Amino acid sequence: MKIQPPKGIRDFYPKEMAWRNYIVDAWRKVSERNGFEQVDGPIFESLDLYKVKSGDGIVSELFHFTDRGDRPLAIRPEFTPTLARMVAAQANSLPKPIKWFCTPNLCRAEAPGRGRLREFLQWNCDILGLDGPIADAECIFTCVDLLMELGLKAADCRVKISHRTAASTILQSLGVPSDKIIDAYNLLDSKAKVSPQEFATECAKLSISETGIATLEAALARTFPISDLQGLQTLVGPSVDLTTLKGLQEQLTAFGIADWCEFDLSIVRGLAYYTGTVFEVHESSGNERALAGGGRYDQLISLFDGPATPAVGFGMGDVVLSNVLTDKGLVPKSFQPAPDVFVFAGSDATAAEVPAIVAALRRAGLHTRMSYKTTRNVGKLLKDASTTGAKLAVFTDDAATPGTFNVKNLATGTQTQATLEDIIKQAKA
Amino acid sequence: MKIQPPKGIRDFYPKEMAWRNYIVDAWRKVSERNGFEQVDGPIFESLDLYKVKSGDGIVSELFHFTDRGDRPLAIRPEFTPTLARMVAAQANSLPKPIKWFCTPNLCRAEAPGRGRLREFLQWNCDILGLDGPIADAECIFTCVDLLMELGLKAADCRVKISHRTAASTILQSLGVPSDKIIDAYNLLDSKAKVSPQEFATECAKLSISETGIATLEAALARTFPISDLQGLQTLVGPSVDLTTLKGLQEQLTAFGIADWCEFDLSIVRGLAYYTGTVFEVHESSGNERALAGGGRYDQLISLFDGPATPAVGFGMGDVVLSNVLTDKGLVPKSFQPAPDVFVFAGSDATAAEVPAIVAALRRAGLHTRMSYKTTRNVGKLLKDASTTGAKLAVFTDDAATPGTFNVKNLATGTQTQATLEDIIKQAKA
Repeated sequence: MKIQPPKGIRDFYPKEMAWRNYIVDAWRKVSERNGFEQVDGPIFESLDLYKVKSGDGIVSELFHFTDRGDRPLAIRPEFTPTLARMVAAQANSLPKPIKWFCTPNLCRAEAPGRGRLREFLQWNCDILGLDGPIADAECIFTCVDLLMELGLKAADCRVKISHRTAASTILQSLGVPSDKIIDAYNLLDSKAKVSPQEFATECAKLSISETGIATLEAALARTFPISDLQGLQTLVGPSVDLTTLKGLQEQLTAFGIADWCEFDLSIVRGLAYYTGTVFEVHESSGNERALAGGGRYDQLISLFDGPATPAVGFGMGDVVLSNVLTDKGLVPKSFQPAPDVFVFAGSDATAAEVPAIVAALRRAGLHTRMSYKTTRNVGKLLKDASTTGAKLAVFTDDAATPGTFNVKNLATGTQTQATLEDIIKQAKA
Repeated sequence: MKIQPPKGIRDFYPKEMAWRNYIVDAWRKVSERNGFEQVDGPIFESLDLYKVKSGDGIVSELFHFTDRGDRPLAIRPEFTPTLARMVAAQANSLPKPIKWFCTPNLCRAEAPGRGRLREFLQWNCDILGLDGPIADAECIFTCVDLLMELGLKAADCRVKISHRTAASTILQSLGVPSDKIIDAYNLLDSKAKVSPQEFATECAKLSISETGIATLEAALARTFPISDLQGLQTLVGPSVDLTTLKGLQEQLTAFGIADWCEFDLSIVRGLAYYTGTVFEVHESSGNERALAGGGRYDQLISLFDGPATPAVGFGMGDVVLSNVLTDKGLVPKSFQPAPDVFVFAGSDATAAEVPAIVAALRRAGLHTRMSYKTTRNVGKLLKDASTTGAKLAVFTDDAATPGTFNVKNLATGTQTQATLEDIIKQAKA
């Protein structure tokens, strides 16, 4: 019976898996050197957990089901609710700041498309219990450190940064009443999808004057280098307080990543729960979905019944990242693990010795493969050894001194006889 | 709003996650050195995929749901059906033998208990396209290599091995008709759960004579060292052909793991799809569920519409393994990643230099943490550095020569001034 795989998922054959490992290993390495500790939660949670943050509307985007006790459960579409639940449950015993990362598989019940699958991996880094722009900047640094690690340069991507306080100050200076700020964020977030006329109409509904609409459009249409906070100040007028962006400017500059970043007020990240800095990383051409996105969410932990806890974090999916690295020619030539040693029998009489050699080399930590063929044609078998990319070929024959084996260095072509102990040394050298 | 985690799952806080990584990293390392390539599939598959191998009865053990197109899907309860689908789909282009491993998260909709959760990790190793006891023995060697890697000794666990052909030959020699062999396997599999009387009654239904029942009970009640195939032969009688076990005996001995293994005819592994060698690894006391189990399943790939393909493999869950390692005192004292360097500011005037130092050390690949405190009390901050387990503490102060920083080796107590370049060298030494 032939069964097709579901749509919008991936089968990871060895090559695809090695590529996935290349990305996930980089996420882990960069997270750890930036001082984040790894965590994970279950693949499914109570359906209610996702409603806390996102409302009932989220349900249609989830794969959900019930268990034997008829409890409603859902496959995780994101990690943040699990993180909030875990932090809230142990808020008092966890040392602060909490710096956690994870690389969970997540599922969304949506239609698949470019950069959008029904199952994907997402790297999350979060700093909780630490207020101020240092935490925001450290998150952004960690994200940029990963991009650099994978070979991307500042010219390849833009970290577009805004701040809810700055944005709200500007919107209010343009006439938006404070109780309509979230509506204004949603409008900004949808700007690319609506006509200029519609945008103007909606702005008017939010009490923005015609001059205000022009200022807003001018502010949204351009970006400001991190060093040019003054440019933004001039645009929005001297009465608008940009202190929050000033703090970010200093920290991003101190971390040495100002050239990767720019202020961009059009970055809103529709989610109502962001409270401060918000940012997205885009490939420079702007043709791809965002590589990463995040921000400060100081009220989320209390929403999950935990104590008020400042928090900032971001998520980066593997799908867009993989597309960008591929498009930029940043896929390494070789990322599949190659063997250290390839072992075969050069004669029938010595064939029974092969498993013991293989066992000893593997027990010494060496990646060891062996030939399963019945041929004893040494030339052909050495060719097989080369095909695997092995460093050494080791083979028995009737002439070898007892306790020694033939070793051929497949890079240099040198062939000698050596004991297992020597072979191990050679392979590890 | 306080939401409880679902039952039978685990939250992996940093310590639990580091322990999980310790196990999963060992799985990956041992798999790779044994020449297996990593693969993975989706977390959900078509519900039908699981029915192919296990029949409709499996549905109640699955978390299943439908997508927007009303297609029935299920979270994977095991990896083998995905493996079979993937191999069948590319059977002609995949080089043989196929040696794949994976470490998927799996879910079962059952009641949780000791050694049994609703979500767990399982290491799978499979060799496909290679017939003969060499493949069976290599799978068993890989499993034992993992156990040794984690500190277990032959005395701690037993690899209990049987063979469907040998078992069937014995059962037939005792009178079981060939069309009742699967029924006989199921009876053997349930022997521990039924009374001796019931067992005898069921045996009689399978046409086993009273003498036969005695022979069978004697054979099931004891195990035979791999070297003592003759003992088993004497018990079952000279007319029973044990050639298949002879081949296994030779290969397990050649791989040097005969002392870990024993023949045990009571190992049946209820699954109808096994066709040759079957084995289970048990902790020696027998008080835990099986650590691992597997066997040969030569007909499965054709069941999934692929070409006839010899196949052997095993699975090892993380839950029982973790329990056994803990009970045997084999949890390493330290398995959480410790920082290389801890950086702090020794004065307010130099505090702004810290992010740049941290950034440079991290970009050099060093695991670097920093203090977020506003205190400049060097003694207290050095204590914080020690608490993290860092190798070096690096701190600024007003007196340091420009371009140099204070470095304290936290193991030796030596304190010097050094450039970033020197600090990187010291930390990597």
